[in-house]
Amino acid sequence: MVHTLKTPLLTVDIIIRFQGGIVLIERKNPPAGWALPGGFVDVGESVEEAAVREAREETNLDVRLLEQFHVYSNPKRDPRFHTVSVVFIGEGRGVLEGRDDARKAAVYTSAHLPEEIAFDHGRIVKDYFRYEQTGARPEPV
Amino acid sequence: MVHTLKTPLLTVDIIIRFQGGIVLIERKNPPAGWALPGGFVDVGESVEEAAVREAREETNLDVRLLEQFHVYSNPKRDPRFHTVSVVFIGEGRGVLEGRDDARKAAVYTSAHLPEEIAFDHGRIVKDYFRYEQTGARPEPV
Repeated sequence: MVHTLKTPLLTVDIIIRFQGGIVLIERKNPPAGWALPGGFVDVGESVEEAAVREAREETNLDVRLLEQFHVYSNPKRDPRFHTVSVVFIGEGRGVLEGRDDARKAAVYTSAHLPEEIAFDHGRIVKDYFRYEQTGARPEPV
Repeated sequence: MVHTLKTPLLTVDIIIRFQGGIVLIERKNPPAGWALPGGFVDVGESVEEAAVREAREETNLDVRLLEQFHVYSNPKRDPRFHTVSVVFIGEGRGVLEGRDDARKAAVYTSAHLPEEIAFDHGRIVKDYFRYEQTGARPEPV
């Protein structure tokens, strides 16, 4: 069916728990900086399938999804166009390796994060560490 | 910016707590049946803004969003094309009235639900009542 409806572009990002921290990737493409692994959802796949696929493509890890964390949708969160991201929490297994759109992949902790984090991923990571410590999810804004 | 990326269409649906139950609307357009109030997210608005707007358009209620509940994204959940829905829980205030895409609006409880519920909204409503009783959120699938 052909349709001309326009909605924001849908993405997933994954907070991968791995070796005592979480995985961030250094982006190959602009905007520069470190970011959560993730990418666009394809038509015909669920957001869960997209999350497992993108995690594998960018980090080489097998990810078991634990829960949906939160949806981030501020129209200005991506400087290129309006994207809405469903963010998951998962556990990674395997050998970590930056691939595909990722120049590098590394494990970070709340006490040690990269200086430059792309998009609103700094905010997402902060929300995540708060959730881990307190159980409080981000509120709808 | 022109882009040709294709991702699923993004919608919101709202579980509106109102007068001891939740609000369902009878759809004007196919697929027939009752459904949660909701609709497509516009480019340039957050999912929260879309949820408040759609709730007002279809039910005449002012909704205060309490939390993001869950994202439903099975490619077959909508018979027309692949839609992904961010479902919210909110509290409604005002005078309930079916409007816009809604022929009618009414309050239902877990003990009393309409027979024909469109899309996967029967499942969403069931997940919601379970969450309300047990605190268990739907798991990623």
